[in-house]
Amino acid sequence: MFTVAVDVMGGDLGPRVAFQACKKFLKSRPDVHLIVAVTQDFADEAESFFASRKSRVRILPCETQISMQDKPAQMLRQGLKSTMAAVLREHQQGRAQGILSVGNTGALMVLARHLLGTLPGMDRPALATLLPTRQKPLLMLDLGANLGVSADQLVQFACIGAAWSKVQCAAAPRLGLLNVGRESTKGTDNVRQAAEQLQRIMPDYYVGFYEGDDLYRGELDVLITDGFAGNIALKASEGLSEWLSEQLHSEFRNTWFLRWLSFLWAPAIARIERRISPARHGGALLLGLDGVVVKTHGKSNERAYRHALEYLLQKVERFDKPRLLAELNRLQNH
Amino acid sequence: MFTVAVDVMGGDLGPRVAFQACKKFLKSRPDVHLIVAVTQDFADEAESFFASRKSRVRILPCETQISMQDKPAQMLRQGLKSTMAAVLREHQQGRAQGILSVGNTGALMVLARHLLGTLPGMDRPALATLLPTRQKPLLMLDLGANLGVSADQLVQFACIGAAWSKVQCAAAPRLGLLNVGRESTKGTDNVRQAAEQLQRIMPDYYVGFYEGDDLYRGELDVLITDGFAGNIALKASEGLSEWLSEQLHSEFRNTWFLRWLSFLWAPAIARIERRISPARHGGALLLGLDGVVVKTHGKSNERAYRHALEYLLQKVERFDKPRLLAELNRLQNH
Repeated sequence: MFTVAVDVMGGDLGPRVAFQACKKFLKSRPDVHLIVAVTQDFADEAESFFASRKSRVRILPCETQISMQDKPAQMLRQGLKSTMAAVLREHQQGRAQGILSVGNTGALMVLARHLLGTLPGMDRPALATLLPTRQKPLLMLDLGANLGVSADQLVQFACIGAAWSKVQCAAAPRLGLLNVGRESTKGTDNVRQAAEQLQRIMPDYYVGFYEGDDLYRGELDVLITDGFAGNIALKASEGLSEWLSEQLHSEFRNTWFLRWLSFLWAPAIARIERRISPARHGGALLLGLDGVVVKTHGKSNERAYRHALEYLLQKVERFDKPRLLAELNRLQNH
Repeated sequence: MFTVAVDVMGGDLGPRVAFQACKKFLKSRPDVHLIVAVTQDFADEAESFFASRKSRVRILPCETQISMQDKPAQMLRQGLKSTMAAVLREHQQGRAQGILSVGNTGALMVLARHLLGTLPGMDRPALATLLPTRQKPLLMLDLGANLGVSADQLVQFACIGAAWSKVQCAAAPRLGLLNVGRESTKGTDNVRQAAEQLQRIMPDYYVGFYEGDDLYRGELDVLITDGFAGNIALKASEGLSEWLSEQLHSEFRNTWFLRWLSFLWAPAIARIERRISPARHGGALLLGLDGVVVKTHGKSNERAYRHALEYLLQKVERFDKPRLLAELNRLQNH
């Protein structure tokens, strides 16, 4: 039996898409309980929406919510009464084994770090996601939570990324560092210094520099970068895949004959879209925290929400803190 | 009548693909003369290969070539006798109106800066390319020539990018700054400081922060970023578009019926590939130099070479130095 807490406020489409997603999720997973944090004005609606699942849903009414415009620096003064802080507190106090939020990433970083704390040796958590590739999924971090990153921080990200991957996948991860070239002379000082440290710390995991066009090859388990480049690479890919989808649909509906044969090609295109769609891989993890924190995109629709819930539950099921700490400790003290 | 100089050494596929591309290019453009720089060991082969076009091709034998492994720092000692330096000198001394190189980008930066010099107010040239988008092509810079970039340098890139776009397209460009969010509070200090300066310097051109997923929207003419993020965003897009092509071909050849109908869908897929393929947009410009310098990818095949030659010629035809300098001066002294 698992319990996860969901902050449904702060998304672009409002909390109702999250309610729908939660209901379907409860139906598909009879072993799960949910804690749903809402602002007062949605409390009654939430109570009646989940009335039929009362035994497995607890509604948590809160004073405020975090908006996309709120500055992370104000969080510790104004954010502690928010839905976001409420779900984090449920997790911190052991009433939930993981949390999902759709809100402001910067705020989630600050509040999660304050309420849950970071794991030993981790200055700040990193935002990570599993990217679809030709072969196995790629755990990529950081994706925008840390913009100006030192060599030491890149190494910290590598340690938590490798430890997490090791515990989740039970195999030695292949870890790369994102750079503008594969040669050891390429890149910024930070990236080159981090590479030197990684060669020493995790010679069994670290396999060298990887470039942007290696992202989708599927040769790696973990890819480390700073939040600025990571965020832009990921979003550029999302933008391109959306444009390609549009082009495929318009090209294939361009002639009456192809339109008429859509039963033949539409499934092929749908398979490709499913394979590459970021919505199916909608959840991002905040790694380095003492807990399981998943963030879903502000634009998340019902489907993206459900994927994020499933993703959170998968991470909660496989979360093994003693093993994670042991592996992290081993890497940090190499 | 135009003359351009081509450094054919240093590409992954050797100089012969470049010879073929040059020959076809000469055939399609009877108004063009070429200067082809080769190392001594290819001089005879080049002479006989271009024997039938002798009146329009001059072979320039050189002592050495730049390799991908050469460090940019050594260029000013060892690189001046190379094919790359030779074509730059032809341009500098007015015997060629532009140059194309397939070699090491770092070396090209150093040699071009040394031999041609930079335009007033430009510390270093930036690597730029025209990216295909939903609407008009996007001039994006820098793409990897400058990794650690200050706010002032981002502003310099914006000035040369905007001036170049204005002169080439004869319309007021819409210029954006790549960032992790659209809000003014987002991003690194450098990016935010550059944004403040751009609002003051070019209020008529600068339209704000743009994110990675805006790259392919087609709303902008010029997008400014540092070389690290720019390189990774561009290559991530290339990697994804390659993978998508592969998936399309394999999905559509998966069933005998779709295979049999390939005459119907293959042209649609080919059109999409042509639209997004980086090979068709194979040339990158070094902007900020006192000259027209195009760099093509180390992996360039014959087709990519020809596109790069056509691209170079288009830039040479439209290069209007007095107007470029006037516009650059106007922006710098705002």
